[in-house]
Amino acid sequence: MSLITILGAGAMGSALATPLTDAGWETRLWGTWLDDHLLDACAAGNPHPRTNVALAEGTKVFRSGQLDEALDGADAVFLAVASVGIPKVTEMALAGISKASVLLCTSKGFCPDADGRIQLLPEAVRRIAAENGVPVPPIVAVGGPCKANEVADRKPTATIYGCLDHNTAVRMAREISTDVYRIEPTADEPGVEVCAPMKNVYAIALGIADGLEEGTGFAHHNLKSAIFAQAVREMSIVSTALGADPATAYGLAGVGDLEVTGLSGRNKVYGVRIGRGEGAKEALAAMEAAEQTVEGVPAAGLALTLVQQTGGDLLHRLPLLKAVTEILGGAEDAAGLVAGAALPLRSGTD
Amino acid sequence: MSLITILGAGAMGSALATPLTDAGWETRLWGTWLDDHLLDACAAGNPHPRTNVALAEGTKVFRSGQLDEALDGADAVFLAVASVGIPKVTEMALAGISKASVLLCTSKGFCPDADGRIQLLPEAVRRIAAENGVPVPPIVAVGGPCKANEVADRKPTATIYGCLDHNTAVRMAREISTDVYRIEPTADEPGVEVCAPMKNVYAIALGIADGLEEGTGFAHHNLKSAIFAQAVREMSIVSTALGADPATAYGLAGVGDLEVTGLSGRNKVYGVRIGRGEGAKEALAAMEAAEQTVEGVPAAGLALTLVQQTGGDLLHRLPLLKAVTEILGGAEDAAGLVAGAALPLRSGTD
Repeated sequence: MSLITILGAGAMGSALATPLTDAGWETRLWGTWLDDHLLDACAAGNPHPRTNVALAEGTKVFRSGQLDEALDGADAVFLAVASVGIPKVTEMALAGISKASVLLCTSKGFCPDADGRIQLLPEAVRRIAAENGVPVPPIVAVGGPCKANEVADRKPTATIYGCLDHNTAVRMAREISTDVYRIEPTADEPGVEVCAPMKNVYAIALGIADGLEEGTGFAHHNLKSAIFAQAVREMSIVSTALGADPATAYGLAGVGDLEVTGLSGRNKVYGVRIGRGEGAKEALAAMEAAEQTVEGVPAAGLALTLVQQTGGDLLHRLPLLKAVTEILGGAEDAAGLVAGAALPLRSGTD
Repeated sequence: MSLITILGAGAMGSALATPLTDAGWETRLWGTWLDDHLLDACAAGNPHPRTNVALAEGTKVFRSGQLDEALDGADAVFLAVASVGIPKVTEMALAGISKASVLLCTSKGFCPDADGRIQLLPEAVRRIAAENGVPVPPIVAVGGPCKANEVADRKPTATIYGCLDHNTAVRMAREISTDVYRIEPTADEPGVEVCAPMKNVYAIALGIADGLEEGTGFAHHNLKSAIFAQAVREMSIVSTALGADPATAYGLAGVGDLEVTGLSGRNKVYGVRIGRGEGAKEALAAMEAAEQTVEGVPAAGLALTLVQQTGGDLLHRLPLLKAVTEILGGAEDAAGLVAGAALPLRSGTD
């Protein structure tokens, strides 16, 4: 039996213990200093507060002060902390990571380096390791439509594991798949990485269409579907510009993850508020006051920076990304902006 | 001002009068012998019973006995009858169609010829015309996420017009687009055609995931999203086998139309019943008793025939289509069948 250490005991980290233990891994779950109350609840015999599902039986829990112990002898490490925590946790865990044969990464996000240049998360991890003179094993980007509570509860789930070393992706798919948690391996690490934060941005736009329905009493399903198709197109354009396979955005990592994100979640809820007529800034303040982080908001600005740093005139092919950033910046007429971006041009007349 | 005749006064035919009159077309709406009660309601000053929206002002209405009058002098003809009515209405209208410069077609379906060979709708129209020794103008396949009531009510809508003669697609996009009804032109007629009936089949599968949630009290969003991604993949596989551009299924015609169909509609409602635990045949009988046609049911069988006639081993790449046809045929464990089809294989172990 191989040994895996999950770093981060929030919703996704704790949920991953289910398929991993089911697949026969000896599973350790390490919580950061922000996860103490979550692990306290589990220790008291309650379900995990973020998934409402009990930790998988056999999972060994480690508190923030026990990182070295948690990583000791790990064959694989699964990074599952919030994206803001990635740099710090990566640095803290470098010694253990460098001894593992693979680093899996379900955390996602755009990471600015010291010069403000945006890196995808695996690039950032490799940079941090290089700065510390430590080798990193192959990194597997984990994506696809994957709500943590359903994973924890053994509901059928399809994920995609992307590793530049395709054999490692195939091996991990074989060694972690269960009857209900299935894995498609791919060599397209950047494709899996870029879709994950971008879909949070586009979920805001899908939410705006839902909010229009709530606000006006009239369904805007045609608009929502046009937004969906345009979002997928834009994820594929950005992926391709970063050297990814355009097909990745059309599969589980793009289409699938956007669908699940549009069904629920905070980015969509935030969009609904805007679609109903609230100002973007006022709606964000209300959500932040309720400790509801909206990941798509910072991701929108970082995606724009990433697009600009790729050079060329990519942005004019991304009208929906542009519209969402304008709406987040306070532009009025959110409905008109998303419709203008998602509907085809009036050919030949504009 | 050009003159267009819409054949079929159901939901979509009557709805199209809105963008057409808005775009400056002199618009005639001809109802079949099945549309009398609908046009009676409009004549009495009521909204159209299928869209709940009044017919666009200026639309000239013709009853079933007035077909020649309706077609007299038409520059363009828009076929918008239910797919079962296509062969008969096409034959009846051939003289008028042959004099028009373009035939647009929002009707969709798989049409078996006399030998049981499946044709896409424009092929069937061309065959019928050839059998009658009459020329047909370029045919424009109209697709994309387009609920009729929203089109009639001027809600933002993105459509795709596919014509083998790309210039005709571009011209129609220019001449029919309005501020809220926008058109993407493409040369990919078969791509637009094949996605429309197939998405009805896959909407049943999406409904099954929703029905599982209703029946068990637990969301199956990961499964629904995996089904969505697999459906898009399969539409692209079938399109490509028929010579279409794989990108069409990834855009408005595939992704967009599947999204709108999964949001509501009878195919999805039928799937929900199955997902909740009703037998497929019993649920269909109940819907038919309520005069609720489920287009995806015949389309599933016809799609299977179409796939088989393309030869090769295409079907093993279409596990979701296969699963839906098995479920419709009475196979038990609908949940297991769609999950088995939409989740990746356990690589290396099966």
